[in-house]
Amino acid sequence: MDELSFGQYEFIFNVFSFSLATMGAATLFFWFGRQQVSAAYKTAMTITGLVTFIAAYHYLRIFQSWEASYVTIDGVFQRSGVAFNDAYRYVDWLLTVPLLMIELILVMNLTRSQAISKGARLGVLAALMIILGYPGEIADSNGERLIWGVVATLPFLWILYELFVGLRGSIASQPPDVRGLVSTAVWVTVVSWTFYPVVYFIGLADLGAGTSEVAIQTGYTIADITSKVGFGLLIYTIAVRKSGYDHGVPASAQPAD
Amino acid sequence: MDELSFGQYEFIFNVFSFSLATMGAATLFFWFGRQQVSAAYKTAMTITGLVTFIAAYHYLRIFQSWEASYVTIDGVFQRSGVAFNDAYRYVDWLLTVPLLMIELILVMNLTRSQAISKGARLGVLAALMIILGYPGEIADSNGERLIWGVVATLPFLWILYELFVGLRGSIASQPPDVRGLVSTAVWVTVVSWTFYPVVYFIGLADLGAGTSEVAIQTGYTIADITSKVGFGLLIYTIAVRKSGYDHGVPASAQPAD
Repeated sequence: MDELSFGQYEFIFNVFSFSLATMGAATLFFWFGRQQVSAAYKTAMTITGLVTFIAAYHYLRIFQSWEASYVTIDGVFQRSGVAFNDAYRYVDWLLTVPLLMIELILVMNLTRSQAISKGARLGVLAALMIILGYPGEIADSNGERLIWGVVATLPFLWILYELFVGLRGSIASQPPDVRGLVSTAVWVTVVSWTFYPVVYFIGLADLGAGTSEVAIQTGYTIADITSKVGFGLLIYTIAVRKSGYDHGVPASAQPAD
Repeated sequence: MDELSFGQYEFIFNVFSFSLATMGAATLFFWFGRQQVSAAYKTAMTITGLVTFIAAYHYLRIFQSWEASYVTIDGVFQRSGVAFNDAYRYVDWLLTVPLLMIELILVMNLTRSQAISKGARLGVLAALMIILGYPGEIADSNGERLIWGVVATLPFLWILYELFVGLRGSIASQPPDVRGLVSTAVWVTVVSWTFYPVVYFIGLADLGAGTSEVAIQTGYTIADITSKVGFGLLIYTIAVRKSGYDHGVPASAQPAD
C-alpha cells in the first residue's frame, strides 16, 4: 500500500462509511419490499436483501480494518503496523456474486430444471472468476497482477456469453411491460461488472503515492453499490410489476402512463 | 498450536469471517423461507435457521478468539499469550448436531411416536459422539487423540446404522418428487459428518508448523458449512415441495419441465 496523506485516508474512510450506510438501508428496503410482491417473487427479494446484508457486514469489517491501519501519534499521521485486510472484498464477492446471478434467474420464471442448470452454471463461473482474481490483487509484482487478471477474465467472458446468448430466448418471452427492465438488468450486470476489472487494472498504473489506493477503493465501492443496490432496485421493480402491482396498487388501478 | 506465519494466520482469519457471513445470511434465508412453507414444516424451518444462528454466534466468538490470540508488535507477528478457545466448536456441535437430526426427522412426516423415539435416539447419540471427541481434541499426546477419536466413532457408526437401516422404510414412503431429495439429505449428512473425523485425525499427522492448524480450521469450517447450510437448503427444498409450492407457487401452476 502506498503512503497516504491524511486527506486521502479520510476520503476513503468516508467512502467506506457511505457504503456501509447504503448497504444497510438497501437491505431493509428490499426486505420490506418482499411483503409487496407476490409469492413467486419473495425468494428473489429475500436474496436481493441478503446480497446487500452480506455487503453491509463486509463494509463494516473493511471500515474497521481501515480505521486500525493508520494512527496519528504526536500529531504525525502514520501507518499503525496493522495490515489493511484486502481479502474482505473477495470474500464478499465470493458469496454475493453467485447470489446476484440467482436473483436474475429467479425473476425470469424459467422452468425448474432450466433455473437450476443456468443458476448453477452462472454461480460456479462467478465464483471461479473471483477465486482466480484474488492472487493478482495481493501480488507484489505487476506481472502477476496482469496474469491472474487475464485468467480471471476468461470465466467473466463466459458469463457474458451466457447472459447475452443463453438467456436471450428467456428475455424475449418475458411479459411486454418488464421485457425492457429484464434487458436493462442484464446490461447493468455487464456494465457494473466490467467496472471491476477496470479498477483492478488501475493497480497496474503508476499513479503515485496514495492516488492509486484512493482510485481502487473508491472504484470498487462505486461498482459494489451499482451492482448490488442499483441492480437490486431493478429486480424489485421487475418483481413488483410481475406481481401485477405497482407500489402496492393493482396494475388495473394504475394511472395510465 | 503450531507457530503460524502471518499469511497462514490471515487465511484462517478470512475463513472464519467468511463462515460468519455465510451462517448469518443462511439464518435469515431460512427464517424468511419459513413463511413460504405450509404449517406442517414451519418448525423444521425454524430449527434449520436456529442451527445456522447458533453457528453464527460461535463463529463470531471463534473469530474474536482468533483475533486476540496473535499480535504484531514492532513489526513482529507473534502469539499474544491469549489462548485460542477450541471449545467453541464443540459447544456449537453439542447444540446443533442433535438439532440437525431433528430437522431431518421433521421433514419425513413420521408418526408422532416414531418421530419422538427416533429423534431422541439420534439426538442422544449425536451428543455422545461430540462429548467423547472433545478430550481428544485438546489432548497433548497423539495417543490420547487417537483413543478418544476411536471411542467417539462408535456412536457415529450407530447413527449411520439408524440413518440407513432405521429410516430406510420412511424414505421409501416419501412422495415421489421428494424421495430423491430426502435420500440426498441423508447422504449429505453422512458425507459431511465423515469429514469431521477425517479433519480430527489430520491432527495426528505431522504436517509441520502451521499447516496442520490451517488444515484443521479450514476443514472443520467447510464441514460446518456443508452440514448446516448445504443440508439446510435441502431441508428447505423438501419442505417447499411437500408444501405443494415451489418458490411459493403451487405445483399445479408451475411451468412443465
